[in-house]
Amino acid sequence: LLAAPLSAQTSSLNAADGDRLASMADKALESDSIAWDFVEGLTTEVGPRQSGTEAEQRARDWAKKWLTAQGFAHVTEEPFMMDTWVRGEEKAQVLSPFPQPLTLVALGNSAATPAEGIKAQVVGFDSYAALADAPEGSLKGKIAFINHHMKRTQDGSGYGFAGPVRWTGPSLAASKGAIAVVIRSVGTDSHRTPHTGGTTFAEGVKPIPAAALSNPDADNLVRMLERSDDVKLHLLLTPRNLGQTRSGNVTGEIVGRDPSLPPVLLACHLDSWDLGTGAIDDGAGCAIAAAAASHVAEAGQPLRTIRVLFAGAEETGVWGGKAYAKAHADEPFAVGLESDFGADRIWQLRTNFSDSNAELHKKLVRAVERFSVEGSNREAGSGEDLTVINQQKTGHVDLAQDGTHYFDLHHTPDDTLDKIDPAQLRQNVAVWTQVVGILSNEAGPIKTQ
Amino acid sequence: LLAAPLSAQTSSLNAADGDRLASMADKALESDSIAWDFVEGLTTEVGPRQSGTEAEQRARDWAKKWLTAQGFAHVTEEPFMMDTWVRGEEKAQVLSPFPQPLTLVALGNSAATPAEGIKAQVVGFDSYAALADAPEGSLKGKIAFINHHMKRTQDGSGYGFAGPVRWTGPSLAASKGAIAVVIRSVGTDSHRTPHTGGTTFAEGVKPIPAAALSNPDADNLVRMLERSDDVKLHLLLTPRNLGQTRSGNVTGEIVGRDPSLPPVLLACHLDSWDLGTGAIDDGAGCAIAAAAASHVAEAGQPLRTIRVLFAGAEETGVWGGKAYAKAHADEPFAVGLESDFGADRIWQLRTNFSDSNAELHKKLVRAVERFSVEGSNREAGSGEDLTVINQQKTGHVDLAQDGTHYFDLHHTPDDTLDKIDPAQLRQNVAVWTQVVGILSNEAGPIKTQ
Ligand SMILES: [Zn+2]
Ligand SMILES: [Zn+2]
Ligand SMILES: [Zn+2]
Ligand SMILES: [Zn+2]
Repeated sequence: LLAAPLSAQTSSLNAADGDRLASMADKALESDSIAWDFVEGLTTEVGPRQSGTEAEQRARDWAKKWLTAQGFAHVTEEPFMMDTWVRGEEKAQVLSPFPQPLTLVALGNSAATPAEGIKAQVVGFDSYAALADAPEGSLKGKIAFINHHMKRTQDGSGYGFAGPVRWTGPSLAASKGAIAVVIRSVGTDSHRTPHTGGTTFAEGVKPIPAAALSNPDADNLVRMLERSDDVKLHLLLTPRNLGQTRSGNVTGEIVGRDPSLPPVLLACHLDSWDLGTGAIDDGAGCAIAAAAASHVAEAGQPLRTIRVLFAGAEETGVWGGKAYAKAHADEPFAVGLESDFGADRIWQLRTNFSDSNAELHKKLVRAVERFSVEGSNREAGSGEDLTVINQQKTGHVDLAQDGTHYFDLHHTPDDTLDKIDPAQLRQNVAVWTQVVGILSNEAGPIKTQ
Repeated sequence: LLAAPLSAQTSSLNAADGDRLASMADKALESDSIAWDFVEGLTTEVGPRQSGTEAEQRARDWAKKWLTAQGFAHVTEEPFMMDTWVRGEEKAQVLSPFPQPLTLVALGNSAATPAEGIKAQVVGFDSYAALADAPEGSLKGKIAFINHHMKRTQDGSGYGFAGPVRWTGPSLAASKGAIAVVIRSVGTDSHRTPHTGGTTFAEGVKPIPAAALSNPDADNLVRMLERSDDVKLHLLLTPRNLGQTRSGNVTGEIVGRDPSLPPVLLACHLDSWDLGTGAIDDGAGCAIAAAAASHVAEAGQPLRTIRVLFAGAEETGVWGGKAYAKAHADEPFAVGLESDFGADRIWQLRTNFSDSNAELHKKLVRAVERFSVEGSNREAGSGEDLTVINQQKTGHVDLAQDGTHYFDLHHTPDDTLDKIDPAQLRQNVAVWTQVVGILSNEAGPIKTQ
């Protein structure tokens, strides 16, 4: 990185430096190539990089090399151990009355079926609530099918409503005697590309085989269940638990003029699910954070250090975010930002200091208006990989992305580079450059408790 | 079917009957449920039905039952024997320099790899023409990659340009020494759902393993080849040739008032590729033909017999169309229509008698104007399953569908019911009802040679 000559100051941005930062953000909107370069490189040269696997290690090696080449200082890998589950074979076949294959993928933490698979009758439920109402023991020997539809929303709130079907639906079905569970994908598309993701079995509930049907396959199964109350499935899933394996977090810094001040932390996760190449989840997030840090440095060395945190193993339980919080519990941070919601444009800015530091909040809002980002007083919720920020109850800024199409692709084989719109990616970089530039040049405390 | 009281006439439609037919077509546009019922039933109760397999036999049984229930007369199965190829396992993995899996599907007639797969270097070609220019023997020991892009067109003409890559590209690569071939899918989408379809090895060329990458995977391989001239693939394909198996054509009739007149033949194919449930290719085609025949009958018994031909085994070499032409070589037909281009709206009407029977051509054009169908003097090309019509050089009417989105889905796992727009499907039924109603009530010859 070419650090521009720095202003001999320790206070917040003066007018000239502010103008320089704003021009840099404008330039990023027009022509940033750093973010695209990152996500194009990562998805091509590494591709899928599931947490705890050798592929994730290759992603860390790739990221360290990239950060170093990009001029980041203190490029570091912080290893941690984690429990690793990996996919095996996965097949489903309607046996009767309408024999045909169904397309599905195992959910993370799914148990395996016996080698010859499971053959059993399907019992359908229209929603999570309907399954919850099923009497204890009523699913004994059956395969439960949870047919909960996800709604398309801009802010991603549909995930909060549909997500539990995946997160805890399988455990609930198991607790009622089901020997396996298939869910309608938690996703808004209609393609034969099912949505994976982790599921969790409650304490004392023995894991059962659990998988997600693609939405068209779920539709088909619904039509079969409308015609017959005796639909039988053959289900084969052979995932494995590998026990403890190594993962890690990767960090790099733009060193500030006053490294004694608490740094600005930019987070994303480097791991991806195994089905796609992790372009929108979350290659784009790391690309945006790293590109913004680079542009801020190019506009002039910031007052505070900016640290990027490429967390490991987010998808299977936020292992990286938690490990980072533990290792850095005693290191104060000024503020955290995370990008983990795709690559579509930012439409809203939220902070957790709109009351306590209203002036700074307003300054940020005014600075991003020209990128069609609105300010909101809704409190920023902290991202998964910012566990350390949550723990310290310190500053948080949420640059909310348009999630209208995110759940078409989320955790599917279709999460690939072609799904990223370069112009929207650049808008993300521009907004981040502007916001991170202001925050990293802020002399006073950012969130006053 | 309720046959309405028939007019005691053997000439073409009188004004009252013409009005009744037109109202029936209008009603179909608003509320036809027959076509949807057919394609919904077939895709749910049978699903994939590859030619020559037991699933295709189930489709014939299903279709005969449906036609009988719908009131068709002379419901018949005409068996024939054919050579059958079936898919096995299919996996591809980049070995170096960027290890990751690639998504692909074998092409029909592909050879199998050895059980342990093939490991070889990839040589990329940007087009069919570039492959054709490669020196003899230059691909010895290599995997050829043909990266030919398909263009989106309304009339499907992009298929004529891109199709040869699949039809004969593998044979061409084999003739130059390639030990396997992967092509970019012949398709216009960007999903991880590759497009299968048949390929043909020329006389004297030994078949090699041949597969299609999804478009995002082809993009990724292109990026790898831009970075490295030593990309190595591991390819495993285990398809099998089953030898001769049984397939068949299914027919049914709306018997005309004068069965001695040559009938109107409505064709589609009942088989589908194995990856999807064959909704748009070609469940919809049979649905449209059968629904139109039903509506014409409902408007009043037609003068000529209408015969629907649900051909078998189209996808793997037009076995059904050819068998039908052979078996019915001596039976004269008045005119043929085929539906095998999805379920999107009809935009153009073409015939092969715009000169020889200009009056009838104009009558048809005027009759479908209200459905936003334009007339064209471009000569109708005959469909694959109308081999018997081609052979007799008799009448042909082409109700051309909008193919803008057809090659997003064609021969992919994504050819499923949810891709059919019920309103556009009804427009097809309305136009077919109008046209088949006129043709089947035409007393004079349709195409005068
Ligand atoms: Zn994520
Ligand atoms: Zn995720
Ligand atoms: Zn077809
Ligand atoms: Zn086809």
